Amino acid sequence: MNTSNRPTDLPAFQIPDENRRVLLARRPLGIPQPDDFAIETAPRPSPTPGTFLIRNIYLSADPAQRGWASAEANYSEPVAIGGPMRGLTVGIVVDSMDPEVSVGEFLYGLFDWQDFAVADRSKILMRLRKPLPLQVCTNLLGINGLTAYLALTELGRPQSGETLLVSTAAGAVGGFVGQIGRLLGCRTIGLTGDDAKVERCRTRYGYAEAFNYKTADLNAVLNDAAPQGIDVYFDNTGGPILDTALRHMARGGRIVQCGTASTASWNPVPTGPRNEREVLTRRLVWSGFIVFDYLDRFEQAADRLAEWYLDGKIVSDEDISEGIEHAPGAIASLYAGKNVGKKLIYIGR
Amino acid sequence: MNTSNRPTDLPAFQIPDENRRVLLARRPLGIPQPDDFAIETAPRPSPTPGTFLIRNIYLSADPAQRGWASAEANYSEPVAIGGPMRGLTVGIVVDSMDPEVSVGEFLYGLFDWQDFAVADRSKILMRLRKPLPLQVCTNLLGINGLTAYLALTELGRPQSGETLLVSTAAGAVGGFVGQIGRLLGCRTIGLTGDDAKVERCRTRYGYAEAFNYKTADLNAVLNDAAPQGIDVYFDNTGGPILDTALRHMARGGRIVQCGTASTASWNPVPTGPRNEREVLTRRLVWSGFIVFDYLDRFEQAADRLAEWYLDGKIVSDEDISEGIEHAPGAIASLYAGKNVGKKLIYIGR
Repeated sequence: MNTSNRPTDLPAFQIPDENRRVLLARRPLGIPQPDDFAIETAPRPSPTPGTFLIRNIYLSADPAQRGWASAEANYSEPVAIGGPMRGLTVGIVVDSMDPEVSVGEFLYGLFDWQDFAVADRSKILMRLRKPLPLQVCTNLLGINGLTAYLALTELGRPQSGETLLVSTAAGAVGGFVGQIGRLLGCRTIGLTGDDAKVERCRTRYGYAEAFNYKTADLNAVLNDAAPQGIDVYFDNTGGPILDTALRHMARGGRIVQCGTASTASWNPVPTGPRNEREVLTRRLVWSGFIVFDYLDRFEQAADRLAEWYLDGKIVSDEDISEGIEHAPGAIASLYAGKNVGKKLIYIGR
Repeated sequence: MNTSNRPTDLPAFQIPDENRRVLLARRPLGIPQPDDFAIETAPRPSPTPGTFLIRNIYLSADPAQRGWASAEANYSEPVAIGGPMRGLTVGIVVDSMDPEVSVGEFLYGLFDWQDFAVADRSKILMRLRKPLPLQVCTNLLGINGLTAYLALTELGRPQSGETLLVSTAAGAVGGFVGQIGRLLGCRTIGLTGDDAKVERCRTRYGYAEAFNYKTADLNAVLNDAAPQGIDVYFDNTGGPILDTALRHMARGGRIVQCGTASTASWNPVPTGPRNEREVLTRRLVWSGFIVFDYLDRFEQAADRLAEWYLDGKIVSDEDISEGIEHAPGAIASLYAGKNVGKKLIYIGR
């Protein structure tokens, strides 16, 4: 085990004079498309007292950015038109006027989709001090792994021997949920949208069973795969998959609502079968999860995830594009299910 | 305070030779109607070893009986056609071949809609040993009061100063929920379906505010009455009231699904706006409650409720019809909202 307290196998990066920024050019209708963004170049900024300058190395593309870019009611203020796209990144501190933040530190945080950010400590989600590859720090120890671990353990509360169903089971969160569920002793069932991902669920993420919800009869599949009912449903999709899963929940089952990826637009609100009777008669507990509510748990969760990784018990997959020009299309690509593993954009140059 | 361990102000009752029974004559379509039942007379039965004979005094009419009489998937086996209607009652033991059950004991349990039942201890929900009127034992200390107390405290978990919304706020459960919420320090808002009940919510159950959801603009009303959002929604109705309430929940709010009275039929499942995004973005916890899951908590809950009653802090309202001939129409009457307080049928004669 590497006992260094720095990320390993760092990619090359330079400190150019210019700051390329991915701006939100207009308010997206539904899922942000490449044309909703513009890339502009500005001079490299300098830190002011109490702030630091970070050189971003990886930009993270996350489903949550759709909500951040939207003007619909959400859990955070919408990104301003003409402003830099809000985004998570991993970078290295290259200048600092904050005595608590040192040049050379690797940080994970909300530094937005740009080469450089002047930021204060409120933007830091985690200081990266684990001897793991930087791309793994951005994924397993970033919001994907943290979401999987914290949502599953805090809201799903799986017990050993229980049945865990996961939608987008091969996705950047779902792949971790399946692995963590298995490590916690669950029988894991994965749902995903293509046959290659079904195979990946079984062979790489250790799901006991996996199905293509687009081609399978989901009702029949769940009857067979979970005859005693589903104890925990980790839902990243919402929509008709959720409606079916609800009707296969065991008494006292927990539904973790972690995403609603299957619904392209919430304006107007789409309709579906009423689910309150299922909540009542099955005594479900259906909870919503936003990872940023659990900032004070990140370190502890990351410790456990890093331990599993270093022990070879969990794999972390990243799908890396090189060049900031890939950022504008990255969110649409996520929603199209094109990535295999966590979508990252390397901008180190 | 009366320190006797028997219910007070007992009504008169006789021990006739015949046993009148309310049978389920056919499978109801939706809400059970009077013609779905038949009243038949049989000889009074006698206990067998390990059982006792109870003389029912009050029959309880409960919304849950609709589900019990239905063949739709539910949380319990449907009542058999031609069998006695499953129902809660309060009665007195008049003969016993169980050494643990004494003649003269007052019991609350699933003794069905009939004059006499031969039963074993598995049918007892509670032995009535509180010095409260028998009708109050059947209501406040029965599943109505127990549901209100246990669902609110176990799933709603209200904190002092929080805002509690209650649907069917003047109903047999809702009236207690409002009173208990106020006793726990909540600001209580009641929704009900007619103006007389609105007045009753305010003057008798202590709601801070109450509204007629049929005539008010519910969105506007909740904007005004809960500008910071609803922390706990105790839902007895489901349907459009639930959909609106969901969109006024505070972050981290709890929804207690205790009933779905607003939906007349679940076959086919009606549609409504999709709610998973509200669960997610508001970080709601939406839970289903069935009181029979909490049998081991009944005594403790009843102790607290009885204490409040004896201290004059909570009122218990019963709507009593005299004569078993009122039983067949009692469930339909509940769903029509005709009762004021808990619907009981006195069959003591």
